[in-house]
Amino acid sequence: MKNENCVKVIPLGGLGEIGKNITAIEYRDEIMVIDCGISFPEEDMYGVDLVIPDISYLLDNKEKVKGIFLTHGHEDHIGSIPYFLKQLNVPIYGTRLTLGIVEIKLKEHGLLNSSELHAVEPGDKIELENFKVEFIRNNHSISDSCCLAIFTPVGVILHTGDFKVDYTPIDDKVMDLKRISNLGSSGVLLLMADSTNVERSGHTISESSIGETLVKIFSKAEGRVIVATFASNIQRMQQIVNASVQYGRKVAFSGRSMENISKVAMELGYLHIPEHYMISVDEIRNYPNEQITIITTGSQGEPMSALARIAFSTHKTIKLEPNDLIIISASPIPGNGKFISRVINELFKKGAEVIYEALEEVHVSGHAYREELKLIHTLVHPKYFMPVHGEYRHLRHHSILAQRLGMESSNTFIMETGQVLELSENEAKISGRVPTGIVLVDGLGVGDVGNIVLRDRRHLAEDGILTVVVTIEKETYNIIAGPDIITRGFIYVKESEALINEAKEIVKKELDNCLENKVIEWYVLKSNMKKSLEKFLYEKTKRRPVILPIIMEI
Amino acid sequence: MKNENCVKVIPLGGLGEIGKNITAIEYRDEIMVIDCGISFPEEDMYGVDLVIPDISYLLDNKEKVKGIFLTHGHEDHIGSIPYFLKQLNVPIYGTRLTLGIVEIKLKEHGLLNSSELHAVEPGDKIELENFKVEFIRNNHSISDSCCLAIFTPVGVILHTGDFKVDYTPIDDKVMDLKRISNLGSSGVLLLMADSTNVERSGHTISESSIGETLVKIFSKAEGRVIVATFASNIQRMQQIVNASVQYGRKVAFSGRSMENISKVAMELGYLHIPEHYMISVDEIRNYPNEQITIITTGSQGEPMSALARIAFSTHKTIKLEPNDLIIISASPIPGNGKFISRVINELFKKGAEVIYEALEEVHVSGHAYREELKLIHTLVHPKYFMPVHGEYRHLRHHSILAQRLGMESSNTFIMETGQVLELSENEAKISGRVPTGIVLVDGLGVGDVGNIVLRDRRHLAEDGILTVVVTIEKETYNIIAGPDIITRGFIYVKESEALINEAKEIVKKELDNCLENKVIEWYVLKSNMKKSLEKFLYEKTKRRPVILPIIMEI
Repeated sequence: MKNENCVKVIPLGGLGEIGKNITAIEYRDEIMVIDCGISFPEEDMYGVDLVIPDISYLLDNKEKVKGIFLTHGHEDHIGSIPYFLKQLNVPIYGTRLTLGIVEIKLKEHGLLNSSELHAVEPGDKIELENFKVEFIRNNHSISDSCCLAIFTPVGVILHTGDFKVDYTPIDDKVMDLKRISNLGSSGVLLLMADSTNVERSGHTISESSIGETLVKIFSKAEGRVIVATFASNIQRMQQIVNASVQYGRKVAFSGRSMENISKVAMELGYLHIPEHYMISVDEIRNYPNEQITIITTGSQGEPMSALARIAFSTHKTIKLEPNDLIIISASPIPGNGKFISRVINELFKKGAEVIYEALEEVHVSGHAYREELKLIHTLVHPKYFMPVHGEYRHLRHHSILAQRLGMESSNTFIMETGQVLELSENEAKISGRVPTGIVLVDGLGVGDVGNIVLRDRRHLAEDGILTVVVTIEKETYNIIAGPDIITRGFIYVKESEALINEAKEIVKKELDNCLENKVIEWYVLKSNMKKSLEKFLYEKTKRRPVILPIIMEI
Repeated sequence: MKNENCVKVIPLGGLGEIGKNITAIEYRDEIMVIDCGISFPEEDMYGVDLVIPDISYLLDNKEKVKGIFLTHGHEDHIGSIPYFLKQLNVPIYGTRLTLGIVEIKLKEHGLLNSSELHAVEPGDKIELENFKVEFIRNNHSISDSCCLAIFTPVGVILHTGDFKVDYTPIDDKVMDLKRISNLGSSGVLLLMADSTNVERSGHTISESSIGETLVKIFSKAEGRVIVATFASNIQRMQQIVNASVQYGRKVAFSGRSMENISKVAMELGYLHIPEHYMISVDEIRNYPNEQITIITTGSQGEPMSALARIAFSTHKTIKLEPNDLIIISASPIPGNGKFISRVINELFKKGAEVIYEALEEVHVSGHAYREELKLIHTLVHPKYFMPVHGEYRHLRHHSILAQRLGMESSNTFIMETGQVLELSENEAKISGRVPTGIVLVDGLGVGDVGNIVLRDRRHLAEDGILTVVVTIEKETYNIIAGPDIITRGFIYVKESEALINEAKEIVKKELDNCLENKVIEWYVLKSNMKKSLEKFLYEKTKRRPVILPIIMEI
């Protein structure tokens, strides 16, 4: 009975990891969902394209789910929406730019017409049966980003989304600290706040500082300027456009996501390019180099991105030219350092000039540093606190930060994905766990690659495969053909003929031995062939290829 | 005839990359080799353990090679020595600690007795027929590190090795700047200098500053202190020992390389542990936790390292306990960030306290920053300059740094591995190229894994393999058994029975069609089976597994 009057907060992703943010908030027969993101595969998830959250808890409670409320338009907050909607079609609420980016995605999946999208303005409140959801403007590395205040029967939950505090953003729309302060004054039950940068001391630098650096760089550029940045960072785009206009440069966009998102941002009025200043990539050749800026994808060195193709001379229309100046206006996401380094080296080798974070201040973070986090904790002064968006180390440091500001340790909750925080007016406790996990997307397959397939792929990647085939006559136990051995990814076969021939002999001896002893269970035969081969190959090479024994019986 | 009087400088590794440093210096019938390192495999070199330089140029000139001169004992400078000596046994010259570490390696390869090692002291000069090689002390993140001055018939070549300038090193042995300055005054023909940190402005911090941080941290530690660092950083080890002794802690070493190198360093007098302060890992349990320090491998989060095993509870003797304090006294090498992050998260989850670079100054770099590089260029004031140890971007920035200090651009040489710099007293020019490259070590195999095997491993990793086998009677063209399909790493087979059955049908149809039309060339049959399967599978799954068609003929 008690549970009846509790609100449950259930993170289904985004805790203990950076990525695939999704949280369910439940009261009686109503569930609202905050965000619906993807994460990118770990480096040992070979062949996997995307990782999406397991939403079986929501599917099991289909009729309760009233909508998805989006904080902003980054992939780790909206990327799973198509996969979600294919299983459960619910209304989606978000600001205009956020929905504009969602629409691109839905179009690609053929879902646009069947989806129910509701555009909101910061300040708007959406009323559900038990919840009221207020969108509150914040700042982030994408425009139109919001915190969400969820008014529940037991109190207010404030979810910051991803945020930073920027007093001089490019669109002049400063985070609504007054509203947050007011909410704090009236009492916030639970704060859920972005933990990404909790290990960084001080305060982030304003996005507008990049503009100054860009102008300085543009003022000296003699040829084309090619700027790689995140396609979703409209304010960065705007500053690149502004610097270009100041120096009489036309602007072209290169890369699919860059073209798509800049188009949406212009249509919706988030990106302003003076008339005649925007050109297509094909029109570049109509202008002298010193009148051209290209804004491109590939700031992470992604091998198929426009910038990588420019560097390695595989871009269809853009060829590097003397005096080209490339600016990489981004930080490498952990794990991408080597990719971007390869691109930088190649650009330098081809004679281009390259400016990146190590050399000039051409990027700022979109996530609050410690002093900004302290500001929010101080303004909100919540009863309970749940750090979100971060690996365990970040969640833990954020929890300690809250405690240093006066919160009881027992009132902070470092949660795992799937754990349920049960909230009443006077109590918060972790009360259980719902099924969660990851679902891997590989090509058209959603969830058909799992641990066994991945384990095999890792094993195959490590030492390759050796297939041994033999045809046996069932009646007589005679070997009719084989054993034949075919390998892939194991060893240069030409240089190893002797090894392979010896391996065949070993299989043959093993088979003869088994068949003589009337061991005719194929699975025993196969297992023996495999074991003797494994032993032999490990002794000779210290490698353990996947061994695939095949018996054809006739 | 002119060439006769030239000195050739031939980098065989270490340019355009971080790692596997090796350079040949040649005059008439004499070659001396500087360093002989390994590099670690790129992330897409699946299954490869080590990358060593291709030394075929030296093997082709066997009789000329007079010795290997080592600057210091890091893997990227000595790691290939065993593989080198197995092909070409030449004398090796190095300082005592450097050779001590080389000996560990030679012992493992069973080469110790057959090798000729010559220990030198900094200041020593080794005379060859045409060259004189002087070892000059420098500072680095390993003790006993040196620059090499090579006196050649055409002038002096100064090779810095890896270095930083540390005015307060732990062993009080400051880089011999006076000797370098003297050499500069008498005239240096060519400077070859470390470029690793040329993108960092300012000056490195002294190793001794770490000691202060450690003492501060140790003063507050209530349980055991576990410090992970590089096994070769003896000065770091010494400081950890000093802080431990100051707080009455015994010191144990964990991890194979940590145990090996600390033992050598103590035997040779580079590491000093007061009597009774050193214990084995097994003795830890005889002391209360607050009297224990463990120095361990795993500062890069390597999955099999001691620290990772402690974190994931698979270490044989060391189990995590409440109040354990872990210090990660190292920076992640690019690409290792995710590994170390996993270990940090796990340690926190298990309740340990963890201190790392983001939180405290527990690591300093061993490579000179820009101001140190400027110092060396200014003291040496060489005629020609070749930046070494770095990716292209580093070499280029180092070349620009030299030019800003007054060197002509035409006197700086950004070289590629294998290019030959020909030096006379009045001229330097790139005159050609010798064969170079990489050799991959996988298990016992050296060089038997190359591009084809790696390509197959990458393909296998991406989408797995599908083997299709059929037994055909040669005389009648009848299918006697099969087609059978076996997959690994492709798809969950249980959930995909329909797909696999459909695939079998397609193969069967293709075969029937071929056999009816008397297409009986096995390679045509196989190719057709493969093509039709590829097309079918890509349509159904958007994946391209390796397809291995096998025909058994009877």
